[in-house]
Amino acid sequence: MTSTIHRNASPAATPASALICRNCGADYPLGAQHACLACFGPLEIGYDAGRLGSVTRQDIEAGPHSIWRYAGLLPAGQDPATRVDSGTGMTPLIRADRLADRLGFTAPLWVKDDSANPTHSFKDRVVSVAITAARELGFRRIACASTGNLANSVAAHAARIGMESIVFVPSDLEPAKITQTAVYGGTLVAVEGSYDDVNRLCSELAETDEFESTAFVNVNVRPYYAEGSKTLGYEVAEQLGWRLPQQVVAPMASGSLLTKVHKAFKELAGIGLVESRDYRMYGAQSAGCSPIATAFEHGLDTVVPVKPTGIAKSLNIGNPADGPYALDAVRGTGGAMAHVDDEEIRAGIELLARTTGVFAETAGGVTVAVCKKLLESGRLDPSRETVLYNTGDGLKTLDAIAGRVAPTAVIAPTLKGMRAAGLL
Amino acid sequence: MTSTIHRNASPAATPASALICRNCGADYPLGAQHACLACFGPLEIGYDAGRLGSVTRQDIEAGPHSIWRYAGLLPAGQDPATRVDSGTGMTPLIRADRLADRLGFTAPLWVKDDSANPTHSFKDRVVSVAITAARELGFRRIACASTGNLANSVAAHAARIGMESIVFVPSDLEPAKITQTAVYGGTLVAVEGSYDDVNRLCSELAETDEFESTAFVNVNVRPYYAEGSKTLGYEVAEQLGWRLPQQVVAPMASGSLLTKVHKAFKELAGIGLVESRDYRMYGAQSAGCSPIATAFEHGLDTVVPVKPTGIAKSLNIGNPADGPYALDAVRGTGGAMAHVDDEEIRAGIELLARTTGVFAETAGGVTVAVCKKLLESGRLDPSRETVLYNTGDGLKTLDAIAGRVAPTAVIAPTLKGMRAAGLL
Repeated sequence: MTSTIHRNASPAATPASALICRNCGADYPLGAQHACLACFGPLEIGYDAGRLGSVTRQDIEAGPHSIWRYAGLLPAGQDPATRVDSGTGMTPLIRADRLADRLGFTAPLWVKDDSANPTHSFKDRVVSVAITAARELGFRRIACASTGNLANSVAAHAARIGMESIVFVPSDLEPAKITQTAVYGGTLVAVEGSYDDVNRLCSELAETDEFESTAFVNVNVRPYYAEGSKTLGYEVAEQLGWRLPQQVVAPMASGSLLTKVHKAFKELAGIGLVESRDYRMYGAQSAGCSPIATAFEHGLDTVVPVKPTGIAKSLNIGNPADGPYALDAVRGTGGAMAHVDDEEIRAGIELLARTTGVFAETAGGVTVAVCKKLLESGRLDPSRETVLYNTGDGLKTLDAIAGRVAPTAVIAPTLKGMRAAGLL
Repeated sequence: MTSTIHRNASPAATPASALICRNCGADYPLGAQHACLACFGPLEIGYDAGRLGSVTRQDIEAGPHSIWRYAGLLPAGQDPATRVDSGTGMTPLIRADRLADRLGFTAPLWVKDDSANPTHSFKDRVVSVAITAARELGFRRIACASTGNLANSVAAHAARIGMESIVFVPSDLEPAKITQTAVYGGTLVAVEGSYDDVNRLCSELAETDEFESTAFVNVNVRPYYAEGSKTLGYEVAEQLGWRLPQQVVAPMASGSLLTKVHKAFKELAGIGLVESRDYRMYGAQSAGCSPIATAFEHGLDTVVPVKPTGIAKSLNIGNPADGPYALDAVRGTGGAMAHVDDEEIRAGIELLARTTGVFAETAGGVTVAVCKKLLESGRLDPSRETVLYNTGDGLKTLDAIAGRVAPTAVIAPTLKGMRAAGLL
């Protein structure tokens, strides 16, 4: 909407240079591959340092008010004509003074509210990047294994551009997430099993001839997909006036989001868009599914899979692919992890709503409750500027609190009715 | 986030100059008054033409990415320190090519998607302005009569700034809207009656001593509140590159939104921020509550109240305060009105979701279905650039379509399960 000219003379060139194994460091050409042929480790996008380094604050600020302002730091969508721009990103970073008071912070506290995305979760970020990459790579259908939010987002993005979609979810998902996926059309497959069962099925399907031209966003194009979460880090830094916070609390399902925020902060400091500073990453899980936080507490490097239970269904990944990398990020920055039970999660949702006006899904309740717990145990410092990530929307997990909150009174439509209820 | 200096040397001065009766033209000083003392007509904010005329595109573009970029054209919040900025506004204007194809448009079709606001409806716009004005006017509590979306927004904004709130809703509201209001704390009163009963009760309460320091956003501070809807017009014009569309379809409950979009377009053209052009306003209602559209069809100037029924609950105002003004706006611009039944509304929700990725509440289904109907009857011109307003979120009215959409198949978590369902 501004008339500023982009400085980047060649906007269509990707800064991505290779796929690199996070385990053994082997590298591969860019393409639809997600596992290392040598060690089966997960692949991640590697970048050309020179290209990343040429991105300026001015380039970014002159871009669209969406994640695509950071196209110069992402693996796909450099050409505006190829990108799928659903208006995702640049969600509010809310100064949460009343929540800070309640929790005892003396430094500023912020809530990054990703319920403002088009399908009301951070998954719109990863899907926007994945579907853009999938189209560039020649795929004709898009698919995913999902605990709900990803299903909503994949189906919506596919509907928007008219691409075929097939979405796999556990059959016991919250009804809101089922309906919100089905409404967009496309194929929706309810699988009798856990998310981990659904994920395993998708990995098998990705290897079949019938699914050769299908991009599973979190399987065969996962390296591209995961990079979308970096924008959660970029935006916070830009919205703080191009600087990094001192502490970050993020929910963990696969663990990917937390590692990508960390990657984003390192990249921004590395290319001089923000000053380098010490910051600490904190990871939040629910007691019903805490394989990563439990490994942290026991000082382990490996994550022992669990069978998930509890109300924080969007975080219920019992065998988290990025668990070890999340442990590295948290330990490497001097942070910590914790887990909270369903009652603490519900209280976290209420506390956030009543002090900020943000109605989070259960995952947001996990983040707030873990923040409180880490403050109480002295692991989180109330005198350091802190950002909490709310990744989803309370309207999708209404059952979690429906029995807990209710009208103050039910009255007849008269002043007499008001008086009878003690309200006048 | 940009370093551009605001040109306005005196940002704290309001451009509002008086309260003016829409019926007889009498004027009153600015304050918490909503009805004319002479004729009981509704009051509206009048502006100082010179102050409005001093606002430039550059002023606006240098402002925040929210409705407050238009503070120079609003009655409150000129001083950033006094405004309540919840991140409301600047919601996506989506180019809806696939929907255009399905409906037979040859000109561009756009969807203004206000489900992206913080509590996922356009009500965040009017509440942001109302609560800012209420604070400036010295009120200590905020209140409303609501069909749901307004309740959500008032409770959330109050929670955010720590103001006391009391919200009145019909007791038969969708459970999602009840829970989403109760979660923010504050007092929530479920009234056994229709919205019109609730509204009448609030008008009575506003006159009591006990409610002297309570701002009912849509009663005693309604003139301020209603101006918030102008931002729906400003944003569309700015997002189109500072020009007006040729046709606009908007849902009608009280009729206020449609009249304010019209007012915004006239203001922008009047002060030279856009070129003046002919445009047509179209109004959409449900068959279960169509007092304004029925008056239009019968060529009447007065609106006969009805008892609302049907699934489009957020539009169920049987005695619409701004009905006559909506009739004026539509007739004056050469537009039209229509109403659609529940089945058409459901089909409208599905059509929008499947072609744009936007999941609208029932009101959005009304707008899409009315657009289709007006095209079929030749009242809407498919060769003219058109904007459809989606004012709310499908997650709040899931019951409307829950029985209509469902998973394609439920399978065992195996390739065999996929084959049995005919998916492999």
